[in-house]
Amino acid sequence: MFEGPLTSSIIGRAIANDAIEFDFVNPRDFAADKHRSVDAPPYGGGPGMVMMPVPLAEAVDSINREYPPDTLPTTILMSPQGSPMTHQLAENLSQIDALTLVCGHYEGVDERFIEECIDIEVSVGDFVMTGGEIPAMAIIDAVARLVPGVLGDSESAEEESFSNQIGGMLEGPVYTRPAVFRGRRVPEVLLNGNRHEVERYRKRIAAERTIARRPDLMQGWGPDPE
Amino acid sequence: MFEGPLTSSIIGRAIANDAIEFDFVNPRDFAADKHRSVDAPPYGGGPGMVMMPVPLAEAVDSINREYPPDTLPTTILMSPQGSPMTHQLAENLSQIDALTLVCGHYEGVDERFIEECIDIEVSVGDFVMTGGEIPAMAIIDAVARLVPGVLGDSESAEEESFSNQIGGMLEGPVYTRPAVFRGRRVPEVLLNGNRHEVERYRKRIAAERTIARRPDLMQGWGPDPE
Repeated sequence: MFEGPLTSSIIGRAIANDAIEFDFVNPRDFAADKHRSVDAPPYGGGPGMVMMPVPLAEAVDSINREYPPDTLPTTILMSPQGSPMTHQLAENLSQIDALTLVCGHYEGVDERFIEECIDIEVSVGDFVMTGGEIPAMAIIDAVARLVPGVLGDSESAEEESFSNQIGGMLEGPVYTRPAVFRGRRVPEVLLNGNRHEVERYRKRIAAERTIARRPDLMQGWGPDPE
Repeated sequence: MFEGPLTSSIIGRAIANDAIEFDFVNPRDFAADKHRSVDAPPYGGGPGMVMMPVPLAEAVDSINREYPPDTLPTTILMSPQGSPMTHQLAENLSQIDALTLVCGHYEGVDERFIEECIDIEVSVGDFVMTGGEIPAMAIIDAVARLVPGVLGDSESAEEESFSNQIGGMLEGPVYTRPAVFRGRRVPEVLLNGNRHEVERYRKRIAAERTIARRPDLMQGWGPDPE
């Protein structure tokens, strides 16, 4: 599942340049039976299977043994019960040397494994996916972009402009060639305005869009309700 | 990028069983120059490149021409400016026969293409990714699971139990073998409680966890503040 995303585009180039490095550990290699089982029915009954604590914990232990005790990786579980992934969290994670991403399957992971081995649970949204792999790709992409040396200079400038936006407001509309597309013209100010006019236009449009689409992001911008 | 995710697990099986079907269209095939360019600098200046409207629109047109005018696919742009992806949105999308997912790159897509060709903009979170491909995988997974015939009977029962949870509260902790793991015991009620006791315990724990971790999901459960 990871081969395509980890060999494409910016992440692929960062791996080729040794700016970041990946390794994969399969919990099945730590199963105790000949079927290599990693899940079993839940105590208390109910549908689905739960990932057993022992193979997962031994998989994490095998990773941690490769690091000195004072620089253990931060171990993250992809989980719909976790903290929502945000740009701020991506920035925090990008400053950590080594991350272990545990991809549960969403039937669930034994709670005692979480208590023993997991530092943070992270969710990429309030919707159900088959497993933690796609959420892990999202986190890898978001975090790797912020690791020094991964983006080129021009990409970094762009990243910064995005981060500013995302911290506060949505980005406004953008336009490129041609000046007229299917009868629709690029706004006049972008074609002929000076830098100051362009900046004012962009700020106003971004604020209007944010109020219309995501008023939750504007909290703290207006007067205090109390 | 899509080969791994679309051949693995539940999605791979659904494609093999003809429950769902995928096709890929490359906007570069609709570029007008010999470099197959699909992006250009933004009008008004600023860092980064913007995806040009013409190749994207022609790519979408080429898809739409394969459908009768009254059953055109719903065309979705992956965009940080979009509606947040939710389980409810996944349910709505799962009832549509054909979806076109447009993977922009996050420098942005010309606004006039969005006006002309896009029905919904969807975001998977307030963080920056390199492109729309990983968000598209997330949506494909979340939506395909809800298409009839994709999940087996037991998986569907599980899905339903999740959806109930996700609609309102986080799922509580789950446990499986062994009964004691590194000194941690499974809660007594799950080992020896009757069905009624287990159910009450699970509801209470799920509510406590939701209040602690995601109070935003509890809106509407308590008394009205006014």
